[in-house]
Amino acid sequence: MASTNRRGRRPGSPDTRATILGEARTLFAAKGYAGTSVRAVAAAAGVDAALVHHYFGTKDDLFLAALQVPLDPREVLLPVAQGGVDGAGERLLRTFLAVWDDEATRLPLLTLVRSVFDPEGQRLVRDGFMLMVLKPVAAALGVEDAELRMSLVASQLMGIVMVRYVVGVEPLASASHDELVAAYAPALQRYLDGPLG
Amino acid sequence: MASTNRRGRRPGSPDTRATILGEARTLFAAKGYAGTSVRAVAAAAGVDAALVHHYFGTKDDLFLAALQVPLDPREVLLPVAQGGVDGAGERLLRTFLAVWDDEATRLPLLTLVRSVFDPEGQRLVRDGFMLMVLKPVAAALGVEDAELRMSLVASQLMGIVMVRYVVGVEPLASASHDELVAAYAPALQRYLDGPLG
Repeated sequence: MASTNRRGRRPGSPDTRATILGEARTLFAAKGYAGTSVRAVAAAAGVDAALVHHYFGTKDDLFLAALQVPLDPREVLLPVAQGGVDGAGERLLRTFLAVWDDEATRLPLLTLVRSVFDPEGQRLVRDGFMLMVLKPVAAALGVEDAELRMSLVASQLMGIVMVRYVVGVEPLASASHDELVAAYAPALQRYLDGPLG
Repeated sequence: MASTNRRGRRPGSPDTRATILGEARTLFAAKGYAGTSVRAVAAAAGVDAALVHHYFGTKDDLFLAALQVPLDPREVLLPVAQGGVDGAGERLLRTFLAVWDDEATRLPLLTLVRSVFDPEGQRLVRDGFMLMVLKPVAAALGVEDAELRMSLVASQLMGIVMVRYVVGVEPLASASHDELVAAYAPALQRYLDGPLG
């Protein structure tokens, strides 16, 4: 805490919160979710770990804040996770489309996806998407071979991001959710629980 | 040709070839494949259209040269296009993986994919991938609803690019071609000729 005072930051000020968030973003980008502790973020920001928890809650909360995405995947994904694996492909796709068709969430998510081409951004995207979205869904649904199956799911969802939302290829860019469900849900469902060999 | 001489370029010099290629790239990026004529490229480069054809061949050849990708999709895709629609999902995937697993082609292709986030690059990627790769395959295979079906195929292949080759998510990044065929070929085949509703 001494260094905090030396730099003139007051605990509880917006400056302190922003400093913590900036250090968290830097560390999560450089070392990934698993390689970053709340304690390390606190040390980098020159504050006590308790203050980090006070501002941001758990490590997951801090990570989600560092991703700068205006939604909490743990809430958004509840309807996907709670319904069992039957029909989960369709539920996951409908949730994904609702989030991405909403400009308020699409624009910050696009910023995150764009960062995938620089090495530090890659880690945020991978950890954010795999650990905060797909892994909890797989656990809730009881998906077997979760790493393989969820990376298959990730590859189809990420491709929809690129083709529908980044490049805007027609007719996919203008297709309704029902049309997209008819086209994609069987593939996603097979990735979740179908035969892969 | 007067302007060429005024600028001191000799027809037939490497400079002239590079100038044509630079103008072609600029025009294809700004106006797309359909909106760019060989005549317009020639005018922008201050040369005669015949000289453009002399150096680069057809408009397709010029477009492929402008994409700066060290392969000719018309040759690479022959085994995909020639075998009929049965099994085309697997043949397309194996061809795609062979091209992307080869560093000599992967690195220039990654440069192209990265450019998808700037508006001009988007057009090159979209026209390059859809018009030079997927549309001729669809035509050769007799795919119905080709625009929808090939954009579904595009979304899965582009997602594999992002997850396997850009981000490197395991186990997809290290999976063998046979494993990837087992996982993806049925989905690709359904996008090509299966029920979508």
